[in-house]
Amino acid sequence: MQGPERPGEFDLIARYFAPMAGKGGLDLLDDAALIVPPAGHDLVLSKDALVAGVHFFANDPPDTIARKALRVNLSDIAAKGARPLGFLLGLGLPDDWTEDWVARFAYGLADDSAHFLCRLLGGDTVKAGERLFLSITVLGSLPSGTMVRRSGGRAGDILYVTGVIGASTLGLSLRLEPDAAWARDLPDALREAAHNAYLVPAPANALAEVIRTHARAAMDISDGLIGDAMKLATACGTGLGIDAGKVPLPPGFQHIIRRDPVLLENIMTGGDDYQVLAAIPPRLAASFEAEALKAGLPVTAIGKLTPDGIRVINSDGDAMHFSRHSFRHF
Amino acid sequence: MQGPERPGEFDLIARYFAPMAGKGGLDLLDDAALIVPPAGHDLVLSKDALVAGVHFFANDPPDTIARKALRVNLSDIAAKGARPLGFLLGLGLPDDWTEDWVARFAYGLADDSAHFLCRLLGGDTVKAGERLFLSITVLGSLPSGTMVRRSGGRAGDILYVTGVIGASTLGLSLRLEPDAAWARDLPDALREAAHNAYLVPAPANALAEVIRTHARAAMDISDGLIGDAMKLATACGTGLGIDAGKVPLPPGFQHIIRRDPVLLENIMTGGDDYQVLAAIPPRLAASFEAEALKAGLPVTAIGKLTPDGIRVINSDGDAMHFSRHSFRHF
Repeated sequence: MQGPERPGEFDLIARYFAPMAGKGGLDLLDDAALIVPPAGHDLVLSKDALVAGVHFFANDPPDTIARKALRVNLSDIAAKGARPLGFLLGLGLPDDWTEDWVARFAYGLADDSAHFLCRLLGGDTVKAGERLFLSITVLGSLPSGTMVRRSGGRAGDILYVTGVIGASTLGLSLRLEPDAAWARDLPDALREAAHNAYLVPAPANALAEVIRTHARAAMDISDGLIGDAMKLATACGTGLGIDAGKVPLPPGFQHIIRRDPVLLENIMTGGDDYQVLAAIPPRLAASFEAEALKAGLPVTAIGKLTPDGIRVINSDGDAMHFSRHSFRHF
Repeated sequence: MQGPERPGEFDLIARYFAPMAGKGGLDLLDDAALIVPPAGHDLVLSKDALVAGVHFFANDPPDTIARKALRVNLSDIAAKGARPLGFLLGLGLPDDWTEDWVARFAYGLADDSAHFLCRLLGGDTVKAGERLFLSITVLGSLPSGTMVRRSGGRAGDILYVTGVIGASTLGLSLRLEPDAAWARDLPDALREAAHNAYLVPAPANALAEVIRTHARAAMDISDGLIGDAMKLATACGTGLGIDAGKVPLPPGFQHIIRRDPVLLENIMTGGDDYQVLAAIPPRLAASFEAEALKAGLPVTAIGKLTPDGIRVINSDGDAMHFSRHSFRHF
């Protein structure tokens, strides 16, 4: 099936990926990437793999697949309070790959690489058979000893989320069931916004420094807010209280979600949010909110860490129970 | 097809991968891995992906798949003169994965991780559909500014290879064509040795320090000796002379290969050697050989970098010409 017109691995690298690496790199021609760690800094590494048909649709636009693969890793780096340094790309191309696909993919990757100041350092391109896969390793750095861990939060800390929760879940729902009852009168603009949120997450990297200087514990929300908050509480050895009425919802969807308890549950457990959940000591809460606004991304208090137990209430103050806590790709 | 008896992602990590990470790590429970770079050192990163049916056979023993995936990356680190620090594992499990497979895979990985002093730092396990894939990122470190690059060699430098060349090519040939004419009277012990060399390469990490302190340029031989040597010469801006009669061949196979020119050509272009090709200044050659022997791995001079041109001669001194220079998986 491989046509003679398709470039080989080294031509692909030279045409589409080497320009992204820039002059400081090794032009991707050496066996390995060289990192000169900033003095007095630690490194933080994230490695999330994405597979066609599992984590995205094979026919998604190639540039959005690239952006999503990079951003899910950038989100982990943001949650730890680190600044991106660069990334390594593992690209498994399916049998039917085309040069046009790679060109579009590389365009999205280069654009995000520039936007997030995260340079391509190296990687590997291989034949992958039936399905496309991507395995990206992102490196970040932060002043020595300051990484925000998942553990470290204490009872009384206020739980904040960055951005909004559920936009990606809405997008996926609309994709799978465009005529769902809740979406019958949805304006096209909202459909499109949800669709785009599923395709390309908006990680909170602009807040990394604010998170690093305020959070006692933090994590990336990727598998659903409730399940991930439970993981954070477990790591901290605390309980958890969340007020679902305070969870920031995607603009335009608030009234739809508030009147549909199933939709609210889906959003709070759906995953693919790629926002940060952070435990902030009460004395730093006002500063955290102010600094976040200054950095251009709102943060919202949704509850707190408690001595023990897991309690989620709705806007009427009634306890909510969930049939599942997380979305599981696996 | 997923049976209820199979563990989930987090159980897999807890049972099989967390023990490998050791106490110094984050127990693989955080979003990202933390690296405290050794003071005065640079980091070197390699990321090679392997796919079932492309880079190994899907029914290869799981522990050897793990070892190969780690070692092809360790080989890159060795060629740069770096010492392994740790690795990130991207594991894409096919639909029909079993816990037994994962247990055997993890055993091989843990054993090599201990042997090469290369600790598991983190990673990601995902569903991959039809085929298994692996994307491992290995980090190494070396004193600042001392990474051995592919460029830097000069005309007159002596070309050395570590270990032997061609064992893996013989193993793959025997696997694809067990009754090949050249292999008709091959003792079982030799068959097995070649088979094992294909399954599990033996990278020259024990020589990393010797390479770092002696080589002006070096690279990992992964795509075939002749093609890779041409890449090294191109990066150095030099020509190349290789004496095929001096290329170190797998023990027991020398007489078979010497009498079969096609086999010799296959071995010199076959790839999967995962040895190091190094350009050593003549004044350091004796020290390089002595230090390598002291480290327990022989090195062999096979030619030199020349002002220009590519010339490979056989043991009679006649010029050899190759129908291909490299093996291409892609």
